[in-house]
Amino acid sequence: MYDTLLELPLLQGLGRTDLTAILEKVKFHFDKYAPGSPIVGQGDKCDKLIFILKGRIRSELIDQKKRYTLDEFINAPHVIEPYSLFGMTTNYTVSYYADTEVSSVTINKEYILTELSKYKIFQLNYLNIISNYAQSLQHKLLNAHLGDTREKIINFLQMRCLNQSGEKYLHIRMEDFAIMIDDTRINVSRALNNLQDRGLVTLSRGEIYIPDLEKLSKYKL
Amino acid sequence: MYDTLLELPLLQGLGRTDLTAILEKVKFHFDKYAPGSPIVGQGDKCDKLIFILKGRIRSELIDQKKRYTLDEFINAPHVIEPYSLFGMTTNYTVSYYADTEVSSVTINKEYILTELSKYKIFQLNYLNIISNYAQSLQHKLLNAHLGDTREKIINFLQMRCLNQSGEKYLHIRMEDFAIMIDDTRINVSRALNNLQDRGLVTLSRGEIYIPDLEKLSKYKL
Repeated sequence: MYDTLLELPLLQGLGRTDLTAILEKVKFHFDKYAPGSPIVGQGDKCDKLIFILKGRIRSELIDQKKRYTLDEFINAPHVIEPYSLFGMTTNYTVSYYADTEVSSVTINKEYILTELSKYKIFQLNYLNIISNYAQSLQHKLLNAHLGDTREKIINFLQMRCLNQSGEKYLHIRMEDFAIMIDDTRINVSRALNNLQDRGLVTLSRGEIYIPDLEKLSKYKL
Repeated sequence: MYDTLLELPLLQGLGRTDLTAILEKVKFHFDKYAPGSPIVGQGDKCDKLIFILKGRIRSELIDQKKRYTLDEFINAPHVIEPYSLFGMTTNYTVSYYADTEVSSVTINKEYILTELSKYKIFQLNYLNIISNYAQSLQHKLLNAHLGDTREKIINFLQMRCLNQSGEKYLHIRMEDFAIMIDDTRINVSRALNNLQDRGLVTLSRGEIYIPDLEKLSKYKL
């Protein structure tokens, strides 16, 4: 367990003795989740850090206007939304579910502020992680581009996905997708079928499955 | 000077005695800039925090492909890009120039890490500021939308502006603008002239002046 904790980006660089000292003062809540069970919900107050130690979780973004949901998958070790613990909007941006058997450990915000923040390496890791996240969002915003239907579909996914690679499920009605990317239903359907022929997406009723967003993103006509 | 420093979001909440103790240990570089003179350049290494104490600065974003430049204005007190001091990409995202007479004070990264980070309130301010910034970028990404030409023009600006209100200058050729928002030159020109008739933008050769982005954003047909 120590080794897994020390692999977490937030705790990387801490020594085993540091971690022992932390474990003596800080309450760690250990949890296990069965496949499919919810961990935290989109919009829930974020007042703790949840470290995923084992297993795979599924994130689910529900559009504010309920026009689509977008699912992604994340493997342990992973910390859930360290950027939602501070700032003006301390709510989870998406929901998280156990996708396999999952073990996690949770630390409340108070301990982050009183104990963990005593460690320079932890402070620095935290600043690096959030800054990095902000930089990746900046990059997306500055590189967002329109173009033909295919490019708009890919851009739609890139803008909304936490992770620019891996498999995704997008649940959306073709009509809504067309409206959201300002194109016609026919064009969207044609572009998606074309991508399906190339094995880059799989279409079924109301659902678009992307086996690997990175591969899709790299595809040029 | 003390009072101005303590008004800075990063230093807010520090006591005067804390600040005195910090000033004894940390090297503060004070600078003055004449109107028009450069402060830091887009892409320059960010290894310090520059606090603008007095005056107004202009930020200038140059598109990677040189298709446009976008100018914004920021009043003191202000800290330049605290989110570029940490993370993977420690380079300024835009250039900054003095727009009026400007006074600033600079603190090198090493002092941030060794001295300022000893203060819980500073740590917390820093985490809040970067998290907030990331949250505002997230919000932009999830709310980016296409639509008619006018909406695409406004969205283009909102996605790229640091501050969602105030005056902006966008230098861009109409042909390039049309390509970037995937529309025709005629449509872009028509939409801009329409906005000009309503006093929301002012057009001159190769330049679009926006007196107040917030007012433009709120404008509905």
